[in-house]
Amino acid sequence: MERLTPLATAFLDAEDVDPRASLAIGSMAVFEGPAPSFDEFVDHIAGRLPLIPRYRQKLATAPLGLAAPAWVDDPGFDLRWHVRNTALPAPGGPDEIGRLMSRVMSRRMDRDRPLWEYWFCEGLADGRWGLLSKLHHSVADGVSGTDLYQLVLDPTPTPRPPVADDWAPAGPPSTSSAAAGAAWRLTTAPLTIARAALGSLAHPRRLARTSRDTARGLLTMLPALRPVDRTSLMGPLEGSRRYAWTDVSLDDVRTVRQRHGVTVNDVALAAVSGGFRQLLMSRGEEPVAHALRSLVPVSTRAPGAESIVDNRVSLMLPWLPVEVADPVERLLAVRDRIRELRAGHEPEAGGSMTAAAGLAPFAPVSWGIRLGLRLPQRHVATVTTNVPGPRTTLYALGREAVAMLPYVPIADRVRIGVAMFSYRDTLTFGITGDYDTAPDLQVLADGISTSLAELLSTRTGA
Amino acid sequence: MERLTPLATAFLDAEDVDPRASLAIGSMAVFEGPAPSFDEFVDHIAGRLPLIPRYRQKLATAPLGLAAPAWVDDPGFDLRWHVRNTALPAPGGPDEIGRLMSRVMSRRMDRDRPLWEYWFCEGLADGRWGLLSKLHHSVADGVSGTDLYQLVLDPTPTPRPPVADDWAPAGPPSTSSAAAGAAWRLTTAPLTIARAALGSLAHPRRLARTSRDTARGLLTMLPALRPVDRTSLMGPLEGSRRYAWTDVSLDDVRTVRQRHGVTVNDVALAAVSGGFRQLLMSRGEEPVAHALRSLVPVSTRAPGAESIVDNRVSLMLPWLPVEVADPVERLLAVRDRIRELRAGHEPEAGGSMTAAAGLAPFAPVSWGIRLGLRLPQRHVATVTTNVPGPRTTLYALGREAVAMLPYVPIADRVRIGVAMFSYRDTLTFGITGDYDTAPDLQVLADGISTSLAELLSTRTGA
Repeated sequence: MERLTPLATAFLDAEDVDPRASLAIGSMAVFEGPAPSFDEFVDHIAGRLPLIPRYRQKLATAPLGLAAPAWVDDPGFDLRWHVRNTALPAPGGPDEIGRLMSRVMSRRMDRDRPLWEYWFCEGLADGRWGLLSKLHHSVADGVSGTDLYQLVLDPTPTPRPPVADDWAPAGPPSTSSAAAGAAWRLTTAPLTIARAALGSLAHPRRLARTSRDTARGLLTMLPALRPVDRTSLMGPLEGSRRYAWTDVSLDDVRTVRQRHGVTVNDVALAAVSGGFRQLLMSRGEEPVAHALRSLVPVSTRAPGAESIVDNRVSLMLPWLPVEVADPVERLLAVRDRIRELRAGHEPEAGGSMTAAAGLAPFAPVSWGIRLGLRLPQRHVATVTTNVPGPRTTLYALGREAVAMLPYVPIADRVRIGVAMFSYRDTLTFGITGDYDTAPDLQVLADGISTSLAELLSTRTGA
Repeated sequence: MERLTPLATAFLDAEDVDPRASLAIGSMAVFEGPAPSFDEFVDHIAGRLPLIPRYRQKLATAPLGLAAPAWVDDPGFDLRWHVRNTALPAPGGPDEIGRLMSRVMSRRMDRDRPLWEYWFCEGLADGRWGLLSKLHHSVADGVSGTDLYQLVLDPTPTPRPPVADDWAPAGPPSTSSAAAGAAWRLTTAPLTIARAALGSLAHPRRLARTSRDTARGLLTMLPALRPVDRTSLMGPLEGSRRYAWTDVSLDDVRTVRQRHGVTVNDVALAAVSGGFRQLLMSRGEEPVAHALRSLVPVSTRAPGAESIVDNRVSLMLPWLPVEVADPVERLLAVRDRIRELRAGHEPEAGGSMTAAAGLAPFAPVSWGIRLGLRLPQRHVATVTTNVPGPRTTLYALGREAVAMLPYVPIADRVRIGVAMFSYRDTLTFGITGDYDTAPDLQVLADGISTSLAELLSTRTGA
């Protein structure tokens, strides 16, 4: 029996506090047709399931809540509850994909079962098919987000052979074992004393519980941060979501990068800033300087050193320069702000976080969301995560993966979240929005692409 | 502003008590192709929406819960939140329809919006399409279940013209208005005093609240009822569902009816009894005499007088004779039990209930479920409802409706529910089951059909 970490527990608590939140992360992988049969797909997953023991474990809550929940084997595990098939209505394009993702992702996961779902999806345009993977944050904390790669994907068209499976569910934990864990909450008690010093935090209990995490340094300087200005991007959420995305060419991003001596990440953030600027203006709002602070895990690799394998990721909270009208000036503003944050190491935090490189698409997304949830929401408006993904083609049952669309959940008062993920030569921005207050996500999506196009058409660097 | 009836409120309470219950009723109507476009369908609904004001109203909860919730106009009403499109994966057959229905129906409705959803569904086999209508019980109490007929269906291939719409949402209720309703709970207080006399009821508060309903007589004799025997049909539920159904020919049912001098309802209940007998035996359980008590709204029309329009419906709680092996003897046992209940008027109750005739498919289903929820669950194992539906062909946007599949929710400890609905010359049994404990719904579905076939092949009446 393995207890949940305080961090994983915090995600459950966050859902308990907000009954309309669904803290699952996800991604839709799009594959060339013809689709395999659903039975064939289920067999494929079954053959690799032993690689991720957590996928056959569910939550066990300790008596009286005295100990952290634990992962225990699910004796009633039913693979076909977790792996589901569905289809898109015609034409199976972006609108239909977005609706499926927002519906599936906004539904809370069943706490009585292992906290993952795969939705095998037929009917995408051009004969393609998709796989929507949904994973609760409390699982992602242990699985490190590599599930999709272990269970589904291959680096070549020939699938790896299935692995041997001698799984037999272990019995439930004994009472004494549960009692032995009862000291868990007590060990966090000193931290609750410290919380008074942290100022007016929105969720002190949640923060206290999770502050033993690697990024704890971030919390100590939060009260010094300037709150975001009031815009329509922040406010109460309801339970339904919308999803949109846009793709840009990584070659185009690199062209802009070289022309202006910035990083790939700078270009991406400048495009996101331009998109939010468009969105605010289309809503008749002023794109003010402090409208939008983004939570950005950034690789600490120096520009030009990107071929060096280095897994260190820093977390920064830059203001996005939505107030800057000129595309190039906006890009340089992003660059300068990131540089300042790097140089000052303030409010940078969590620099010691280490990501699994290359094939770990979710880990930084997950970190970003976790931090976002722990931050008092007056400080962060949008979670933007930048995940460098695989550059070579991946396959599922011999079918080529042509796109990967990342999904981040939103909660509390953050009405729009943006996730970035790169695959081969494409950088994809996945945008999650509150259904009622963000009906215009496409304005943001188009604005991101337009901003990059503007940068690309600018011949002169600054 | 209109307050919810105590009955409608009781459905909300029932969901609050059991976080995994979803108390929506539903039906899937299957139409000949070609499917209209989704936009065309949405326009069709929009043109008739004024016919059901409740569909643009949402719940408003009174301060401190002192008054019953009220229906108020939803100023943010968004038709496309309620009318959704989806598709079935290939081959779009019974399995795929069943999975869609169980997934959609088991998801709780959003309490912050009008409590209905229509799922426009492409990809049914043979070029057909479907409409899954989902309606919360607390709405059904006011809408009388005729929504589908008002909003979607026509008696001829030519759709009725749209109606004028001058809807403008009324403002929220004033505080004084809310306070004026605060006496609501107080008026029910005398009933709570009476509850001690009712014996060991499972949900006294819920019962007390709803006992002003027309069927209150039923409650007074409940303690005298024998509890059902322990079988796998009763027990804890989790949140996921399964759905299956089977069709039989109404002509076949009538043939059996005439041969044995029984009613259509007797034949249907005998088939259900035979199906449950098969199910229990296939599970290695004894089909004991008191395994299964069904809650049956039965027309009080006398046999042979069925052409006389008479809307009176009685509610009975017969034991289903699952212990009887011979099909004909089983049928006659059903007949005798119903006759006894009719003759004794005990434990019959609610005889004064009046249903909207003909085109009101949901009303009796709804009554059945409501009673089922109010009954201490040791008394009722399965809700079986018998709804005589339309005999003539109906159309949606000029497309012929070829089938109608009813869905009843299950809750508390009832693991399988059966709903019956007739359309044209077909009687359809819709079966809802708990996902984990009822993986074998098809055994029940096949058993129902087999039981009727056995009766049909029996040449000699008793």
